[in-house]
Amino acid sequence: MTTMAPGTTCSVLFEDGMVTVGERPMPAPDGHDVVVAVTSAGLNGADILQRSGRYPAPGNAPDDQPGLEFAGRVVALGTAVTRWAVGDAVMGIVQGAGQAGHVATHEDLCIPVPAGMDLADAGGVPEALVTAHDALVRQAGLLAGDRLLVTGAAGGVGTMAVQLAHGIGATVVASVRGRARHDALRALGADEVISPDQQADAGPWDVVLELVGAPSLATVTPALAIGARVVVIGVGAGARLELPLLHLMTARATLRGSTLRARPLADRIVASRRAGVLLEHLHGRGELVVPVASRHDLEDAADAYTAFETSGGVGKVLVVP
Amino acid sequence: MTTMAPGTTCSVLFEDGMVTVGERPMPAPDGHDVVVAVTSAGLNGADILQRSGRYPAPGNAPDDQPGLEFAGRVVALGTAVTRWAVGDAVMGIVQGAGQAGHVATHEDLCIPVPAGMDLADAGGVPEALVTAHDALVRQAGLLAGDRLLVTGAAGGVGTMAVQLAHGIGATVVASVRGRARHDALRALGADEVISPDQQADAGPWDVVLELVGAPSLATVTPALAIGARVVVIGVGAGARLELPLLHLMTARATLRGSTLRARPLADRIVASRRAGVLLEHLHGRGELVVPVASRHDLEDAADAYTAFETSGGVGKVLVVP
Repeated sequence: MTTMAPGTTCSVLFEDGMVTVGERPMPAPDGHDVVVAVTSAGLNGADILQRSGRYPAPGNAPDDQPGLEFAGRVVALGTAVTRWAVGDAVMGIVQGAGQAGHVATHEDLCIPVPAGMDLADAGGVPEALVTAHDALVRQAGLLAGDRLLVTGAAGGVGTMAVQLAHGIGATVVASVRGRARHDALRALGADEVISPDQQADAGPWDVVLELVGAPSLATVTPALAIGARVVVIGVGAGARLELPLLHLMTARATLRGSTLRARPLADRIVASRRAGVLLEHLHGRGELVVPVASRHDLEDAADAYTAFETSGGVGKVLVVP
Repeated sequence: MTTMAPGTTCSVLFEDGMVTVGERPMPAPDGHDVVVAVTSAGLNGADILQRSGRYPAPGNAPDDQPGLEFAGRVVALGTAVTRWAVGDAVMGIVQGAGQAGHVATHEDLCIPVPAGMDLADAGGVPEALVTAHDALVRQAGLLAGDRLLVTGAAGGVGTMAVQLAHGIGATVVASVRGRARHDALRALGADEVISPDQQADAGPWDVVLELVGAPSLATVTPALAIGARVVVIGVGAGARLELPLLHLMTARATLRGSTLRARPLADRIVASRRAGVLLEHLHGRGELVVPVASRHDLEDAADAYTAFETSGGVGKVLVVP
């Protein structure tokens, strides 16, 4: 770790689209905030968008400090904090600046790290966990017995969604490009692994978690079950959908779009709390693993971003302050 | 009324796309069915589609007997009927054959005609009532204070939706073509009446009831409020939507398609029961009227269909057996 000036902490920074590392003031905990010394912090697609200027950070989050998730230990408490003590192992989603030595965040956004989960892995859990849980459970109302399609299932949200849905008792169909990833997804709990060109024929779908975008979604709208719920949270492959409305009407189906990051604090707290409960439950039964593709010292953050953008495998890319 | 052979009843019939009138066997009530002597029966867009062969009747409904709604008096009871007695005034939705002298239907699909409502008007109520109520309340979860857009608001479902939503306490914006209809819609409870080209600017919309189709819907998706619910139940003007998925994602909005006619009996019963309760409530306060455009003897059904297809006004076209 780099030696820091007193009262500062290290942080990954974006400067004119480049990834660097620098110092920022040590965050101070106000009111309900805790300060966490970060052990690991995952990279996400939104970081890449933010670096290119296409996804401005919401709320008070700085535009030049990336990072939507962290895990670590509580080192300071705001005066109103009641849930945590110094030394507690927590993880959580943040609106930015998670890839840093220290983060300050609302105590109710913190999720306890389950017993037995390595803190060096846990920083890759919260964003995918809360995103996948919110989309599957709160938005789509996923139930045991539902036939679920997860498109783009090899990424962070996809692998988490497969595990959560398997734990809930859904029939999980994971769609990925490339046969090399099939075994990894089956090991995570997918009942079937298909390629994108099979999405139209492998339905009918009770629930679809769309992580790829319009070209993928267009193949599934003709194959929706009665009462189907489709949740779109990723549109990297295209955001303009040609939608035959009769597909929705005959199936009496729901198409919902969602993002997590810009929601009001109260909603992010509810989403985090509920996702944390299912995480505890499934991890306790040994039914949830955190696939890690690679770990990089925070000083080598540029390497981490290169690894993230060229990754063809399954699992999270993490920086370790 | 034409003289009927014993054991028969008169019915509007479709023969090779033409509207005629003929005799059909008098329906007998099985189990939970009641037989109703029809006083009035409304025409709906689905009748026109069925006549042209583009909307086959679902379930056991005959393809050649139109009519999705009726009002009249109970004249015979199945052995299991508990809710009704001979002589009761009822209305209801049916899957077909409602434009006839008599209809048989499940007792739980019958809605009591509110005290003071003319049976000669009531036959134009059920289809619009149950459709609008189901879409606004059960599908979209309309609440007091929501800003609601009803597109194509001058038709049967539209005028009913305006009244129900006004009664619920929503801010109701009715979109119609032609200034001639503005006063009628204001009188029904619309807070604002706009033309379709104002739909994009008069939002943001918490709830949209889309009765027109894709061209109309395309103008409102950029103007959705956070958490918006859009329900599509009419696509006469076009069924292929160019949908920018980011409109749904940023608003965390829901787009739902729905049809009423093909649903399972249990769901049609729930929809009818709940809509009937709100009808009773609003009609009792004098807050619900049934705009009638014209009434036609059942023998002159062809005239009724011509009036329906050329109607430029506000209100239902009814046949009177």
